[in-house]
Formats: sequence, C-alpha cells, structure tokens
Amino acid sequence: MKRFTSVNDVNNLSALVQEAIQLKKNPYQHKHLGQNKVLGLIFMNPSLRTRLSTQRAAMNLGMNVIVMDINKDGWKLETREGVIMDGDAAEHVKDAVAVMGQYCDIIGVRAFPLLQNKEEDYAENVINQFIKYAGVPIISLESTTLHPLQSFADLLTITEYKKTAKPKVVLTWAPHPKALPQAVPNSFAEWMSAADVDFVITHPEGYELDKKYTWNAKIEYDQNKAFEGAEFIYAKNWSSYHHYGQILSKDRHWTVSAEKMKLTDNAYFMHCLPVRRNVVVNDEVIDSPNSIVIPLAGNRLWAAQTVLKKILEG
Amino acid sequence: MKRFTSVNDVNNLSALVQEAIQLKKNPYQHKHLGQNKVLGLIFMNPSLRTRLSTQRAAMNLGMNVIVMDINKDGWKLETREGVIMDGDAAEHVKDAVAVMGQYCDIIGVRAFPLLQNKEEDYAENVINQFIKYAGVPIISLESTTLHPLQSFADLLTITEYKKTAKPKVVLTWAPHPKALPQAVPNSFAEWMSAADVDFVITHPEGYELDKKYTWNAKIEYDQNKAFEGAEFIYAKNWSSYHHYGQILSKDRHWTVSAEKMKLTDNAYFMHCLPVRRNVVVNDEVIDSPNSIVIPLAGNRLWAAQTVLKKILEG
Amino acid sequence: MKRFTSVNDVNNLSALVQEAIQLKKNPYQHKHLGQNKVLGLIFMNPSLRTRLSTQRAAMNLGMNVIVMDINKDGWKLETREGVIMDGDAAEHVKDAVAVMGQYCDIIGVRAFPLLQNKEEDYAENVINQFIKYAGVPIISLESTTLHPLQSFADLLTITEYKKTAKPKVVLTWAPHPKALPQAVPNSFAEWMSAADVDFVITHPEGYELDKKYTWNAKIEYDQNKAFEGAEFIYAKNWSSYHHYGQILSKDRHWTVSAEKMKLTDNAYFMHCLPVRRNVVVNDEVIDSPNSIVIPLAGNRLWAAQTVLKKILEG
Repeated sequence: MKRFTSVNDVNNLSALVQEAIQLKKNPYQHKHLGQNKVLGLIFMNPSLRTRLSTQRAAMNLGMNVIVMDINKDGWKLETREGVIMDGDAAEHVKDAVAVMGQYCDIIGVRAFPLLQNKEEDYAENVINQFIKYAGVPIISLESTTLHPLQSFADLLTITEYKKTAKPKVVLTWAPHPKALPQAVPNSFAEWMSAADVDFVITHPEGYELDKKYTWNAKIEYDQNKAFEGAEFIYAKNWSSYHHYGQILSKDRHWTVSAEKMKLTDNAYFMHCLPVRRNVVVNDEVIDSPNSIVIPLAGNRLWAAQTVLKKILEG
Repeated sequence: MKRFTSVNDVNNLSALVQEAIQLKKNPYQHKHLGQNKVLGLIFMNPSLRTRLSTQRAAMNLGMNVIVMDINKDGWKLETREGVIMDGDAAEHVKDAVAVMGQYCDIIGVRAFPLLQNKEEDYAENVINQFIKYAGVPIISLESTTLHPLQSFADLLTITEYKKTAKPKVVLTWAPHPKALPQAVPNSFAEWMSAADVDFVITHPEGYELDKKYTWNAKIEYDQNKAFEGAEFIYAKNWSSYHHYGQILSKDRHWTVSAEKMKLTDNAYFMHCLPVRRNVVVNDEVIDSPNSIVIPLAGNRLWAAQTVLKKILEG
Repeated sequence: MKRFTSVNDVNNLSALVQEAIQLKKNPYQHKHLGQNKVLGLIFMNPSLRTRLSTQRAAMNLGMNVIVMDINKDGWKLETREGVIMDGDAAEHVKDAVAVMGQYCDIIGVRAFPLLQNKEEDYAENVINQFIKYAGVPIISLESTTLHPLQSFADLLTITEYKKTAKPKVVLTWAPHPKALPQAVPNSFAEWMSAADVDFVITHPEGYELDKKYTWNAKIEYDQNKAFEGAEFIYAKNWSSYHHYGQILSKDRHWTVSAEKMKLTDNAYFMHCLPVRRNVVVNDEVIDSPNSIVIPLAGNRLWAAQTVLKKILEG
C-alpha cells in the first residue's frame, strides 16, 4: 500500500478486513517491521480516538511516533499558491510538508473542512499537498471529505458482528447543535458501497450527500421505514452538502431512541464518537447491550495497525 | 496493585517504600514488565513534575507512553449523568474513558478541583468515572482531593533522610496569592497518619483540613511552637476547607524563614513544588543545605516507577 | 562534548562535520548509546524543524524523548533573582530546571528573545540558568542570540554542495513583515567565521550585527555587488541590532529574485525556514533546481544526531 486516504487505495477490501482480524489475535508479531521507522502524526484539529489508536498501532509495530499539533506547536501555514506571504502565515504548507518528509517515514494528517466553500473543501487541498510534497506515504487521519480509518473500523466491526451473509446496514442522520463535516458519512457510504451489505441511508430532505460516495446506496427519507429489518444502525449527524455547511434541521424526532430500535431486526447500534448523548442517540440505546460503540472504537486500533503494516511492507 | 488513588490502595506501606529504595539502586532491571504495554497520561490541568517523572518511570520499565492534554487536544467533556448534550461539551467523560481503555494498559489522570462546591469536588467525580469506565488500572496524577504520587515521594524522602526512628514531621500552612486545592495537604496527612512518624499540622484558625485525613495528626495553631524539635518542615499553602475554597489569610508571618527554621532540630525543608519563593518560603531557606526539595522532586520518579511496577505485576 | 550552545562548544569543527557525514550513511549503528537515556525537549516558543528533527535524532540513537511546551503544559516561570513571587509566575526557572534535571539525561531548550531590551536578551538568562541548575548537558534549540543546530546543518550542507575548496558564501538580509531575532544570522556568522569559506554579509545600513559574531566577515551594503561570484546565497531577515528589535526597512528590492541569482556563480539558494515566499525570496528561486532548502532542513536531523552522540559519549 502506497497511501491510505480512501477505499480506492485498497486493492482487496475483504483481504484487508481479514488481515485486521488476524492482527487482532496476535498484535505484536510484526514489531520488526517498524524498527528504526518513525510515524509523524500532524493534527490541525482536535482528536481523541485517532490520536490514541494510531499511536498505539504504531507502537505495536515497533515504530516510534512523533505527534505535532501544527497550529499550536508550529507556525501558521499558508495553503494558497503563488501568494505574497506578508500576512499571518509564516510558512507555506508545501515547505512544511517537504520538511516533515525529511524526518518521518510515514505521515498521518488531520485537516477538517471550514464548511464555508464546497469547492475548496472538496478539492482536498491540504491532504493533496501532503501527498504531493512529503515524499513519504500519507495516511488520512480524517480529511475534509473522508475518514477512511473510521470506515475501515466500521467495516471490521460489521464483519465481526453480522448475523447474516449480507446484512442490512442503515446510516441514519441525527440532529446536532453544530454544523459538522460530511467526512464520516461520505466515507462510510464509500466503504459500504464497496462491501457486501444491503446499504440504506436515511435523512431529512436537503441532507443528500455527494452522489460520488452514495451511488450504490438506497436513499429513504422515512427513518422508520429505513429501520425496518436493519441489522446495524449507524447514527451520525452531518451538515447539508447541497446547502453547503448549513444546519437545515435540529428535529429531535430523528434522535435514535429505544422505540425506533424496536423497528429493527434487533440491530446493533454504532456511532463513530464523540457523540452528543440524548441529542444524536438516547442514553437508553447507547447504554444498551446492543450498543457496540466501544468495541467499534477499539477496532480503530486494528484498522490503523493493519494500514501501517501494509504501508511498512510497501 | 489494582489502582493507585490513595494510601488505602497500598497493602503494605513500609514494604512499598523499601521497594522504591531498591528500585532506585537498579532502575532498569524490570524493563521486561513494560514490554508491549502502553501508559496513557491524561491531563486536564498543568503539570511539570508529574508529567516528566511519570513518563520517565514508564520508560524505565520499558513501557510506551501516550500523553494527552484532553481539553486542548481532544473534545470538551460532559461529566453529568443523563443530560441532553446540546451545549459546549462534545463528548461524555464516560465514553471518552471507555475508549481510552481500549488503547491503554494503564491510565493516569489529573483533574484539579474548581474550589467552588465542596460536595462536588469531594465526590471525586472525574477519577471515579475513570475507575468505573476505563476497564484498566487507574493512577491518580492528582485528583480533586488527593495527590498520592507526591505523598509516596514525600514518605520515601523522609525515610531516606530521617535521623531518628520516629521523626517529628510538621506540615505548615504558608501564605499564597491564589486559592489552592487541599489535595497535597490532605494526601500528606493521609500518608503521614499511616506511617511511623510524630505528625503535627500547623495553620491559622479556619484552615482545618477534612478530619477524614487528619484524624491521626496533632493540630497546633502556634507555628513557632509546632516547629520546636521538628526534624522535617513540610510547607504548603491551601485554601480553606470549611469556608470552601476561600483565602482567609495572606499573613507573611507564616512564611518559612531562616529564623523559624532555627526553632527546629536542624530540620530538613520540604515542599512539593512549584513554590512561590519569598512568599511560601524565603530564598535563604529553600537555597540552604537543609533544603531537600530537589531530591524530593527526584523521588517522584521512583514513586511513580514503583507504582507502575506493582500494577504491571498485577 | 559537555554542552552545545555555540560553535565555541566544538573542539574540532571539521571533524564534527565529517562525523555528521559518516552518521548520515549509517544512522542506526549507535543505538546502544541511547539505551535507558531520556532527552527532554523544552519549548518556550513554536518549532517545527527543531522539534521533529531532534526527536528523530534521539530515536535513531535509541533514546526516549519527552517533549514539553512549558508555557502551555506547565507553570508560568519567574526568571529574575530574589523576587517576591506574588504575581503571575508560579515557579522559578531555577527550580523548574533543577527538577527537569532529575528526570532527563540531556535537556534541549528553546527560548526566543522578546526584542525589547538588548542587554537582557544578550545576557542569555534562560539558557544560562538551564546550564547552571540542570546538572545535565544542555543543548540550545535556539536561544535568544544563537541557533547552533541550524548553523551546524548549514555548514554540513555547504560542505556537501561546495564546488570549490573555499567557496564564497553570502548571507543576505531580506525583507519581512515582522521583527525577527538575530539568532540565526549571528550563529551563521559565528560558524562561517570558524569555517574555511570566503564569507560576505550584505544588508541595508542600520542592520549591522553584533561584531562579536561578524568579526571575520566582509560587510557589503550593495546586495548586487555581494552576489557577484557567490557559490551560496543564504537569505534571512533579522531586526536591527543597534536600533534594537526595530524594523528599519521592508524594501522589496532586497527580496532574492531570479534576476539577482543570475549575478552569482550559479549559486545554491539556502534559507533556514520557515520562509515567507515572495517576500524573502521569490517562488522562482526557492522552487528552482538550485534551491537546497529541503536537503538543508533534512541535515538538521544529522546535525542533531551528531551532537547527541557526542554528548552521550561524554
């Protein structure tokens, strides 16, 4: 593997999931791979799961890790080309990235969207400059449009918990007080479309995602209908893609409740976390035995370790 | 050892101190214990000694360490139960903690009190949620009411420096411009009460600590009288427990001076640091040969390493 | 080597450069040297290259690393002697440093000048207190007046790229929107004066550096004339030393352009980074094949590793 920024960087998806399952059973058998190798983790935004799980994954492989919160620890970065840099930014991202590549064998980067200009965000300017200038393999720790380490953990978890060969998996929009990126739902759609599942997305009108990612999904505007027969409910808020970055609804009828879960086929409840309790999902659901949010978060480690292993192997 | 949050988590106090003394002589002999183990250090407040000494302790044992300043690097945490999370907090502490437990083998956490509500602070809500939800052993890096790693280093230092079998140890309040927690004096009292010392606390009236910790101490309101015959003077400011979080006095007569030290039996001077020079203690005392504040800080390493070793051993 | 804060800490400069060249060919052969050793990196200011390259250097030598942004992670430090500490600062730098020395085998520290008082800045108060109180070897990660790890990398790069035995090396001032320290040009002058090069400094009048560092340099106020026959152009902005900390000029005629580079002997372009593109240097120059800013940044790793190795060897 040369990089990991999308499901399209994966040659054989089911083989990748099987490799994660094997790794989980025997986490320390590949420590030679990481010897004398350094992973740099560059954060432009907050992170808990990604920060901790990716560090642990690298440590399990014998790598050293350097973590940097670039906006706090380093210099404000310019991202535009050809500009006269007499403003706030002290360094151009392409210089910073080329320098990082001198010290790190693999670089992970997190860069959230500003949700103000769809074209700019969907151009993936930051991660593309990392790919172009670092000279070493790049891993997305959540880009402006995708979060592949999360989606890999999602698919791994569904593979472990599924009760039927081709389970019904429902991605449901849920309310939230703030405007959130589309990266997690885009990415989930991208991965579910490549996997062997019956994939349904449900959301209020106006919350349609980019068809580039949802081409293989059934869209169902009636949440109750969508939940029928579901084996997995994956809840997530996102802001509107078409009315870019806007909050069109905070309707609490979309909150995942115990009553709604009764419509499913005794479905497992999933969420990528962090989650707003009693807004996105009620305590009664996330604290129920059908909630697998913590093992799902645990699988972030094995997803990251599998990706790092594949990259270390070349 | 299953956790380390109080002297009550210690089975045999004098054996623990002896183990630290042995470890100090041969610091790297237990590196196999930490192999493939990760310590997570979660800070909600500033830290110098605890941050550095606990990292070094883990490294000496062959562990990997992940440090996280949760409020800066992660998401703002909700700590109340059952609340509708539509405010600032993006994640509930119980979800964050359960996730951390997926990636770390031991977790240390620092959470200072707000000093506004005694009942809330003394309920130890944060560290108790770590104990309840992490699923792995928890080490206090200073909680709202106790600082056991400091107290262990205090006792280790007294054991090393004492000239008599049962030395007189005096904890003296000292002035300070800001309202400080009671964690260090509570914890010192808890540990001294469990140790074989003649323990005296001196402070202005109104600064009485929670009797839960000082049950075995003699309280002496006359600082001069308290200092007579002392072998160790341990200075520390704290805000009032009874008039909770208030500063009742900034009286510089309580500052530890060379003149006051003359009343003692050539006592050693101790303080946990950081210390306000010429407010808590005069330069002439802290810079004198009788000051053992730096070796005391050095013993933080051996206290932390002994605790980690005991937990790794199960 | 006992410390690394200036070229004066180096016994044999050309031998040091040769050692770096050898290390670069075989980076992992000295991992035994760092076993059970901990490097503490203390930052009072932002850092990208120094932060990452010094961590990597220590890892290549088998050391563990602890990084601390002291003003964010720890306590505000007092630096004056004998003061009554009842203000903002919670800890005296001499206590903090003595404590760090208890946990670290080598300490690196970065402390920028405030550029308000020349005597205070040039007294090097912070790094001198580290040297005095830490009890372990100190490495400058850029002090108020010098940046020796950068200068070592500069000299290493010139040694690798030079086409003549004694190349003409030109340090040119360039415009910048903010007042910057003199540490990089001071240090570059100090190292070039100790090396076997034909060294010229060019800058507008009023930007003369401290003669202590430039005693062996030719000063040329005409930038075009200075560039003639140059084999290396090293661009850098600094604020005035004589009109201390002031910006006397923002004249864009001093920006390094392709036209100016034509005056040279096909010179290599160098800058320590971060660099303001199209203010200090035009894109056409820094993106040209003659730009060696990225390999120069890469050499920061080998400079740091050579220094750490020499200190570990004693």
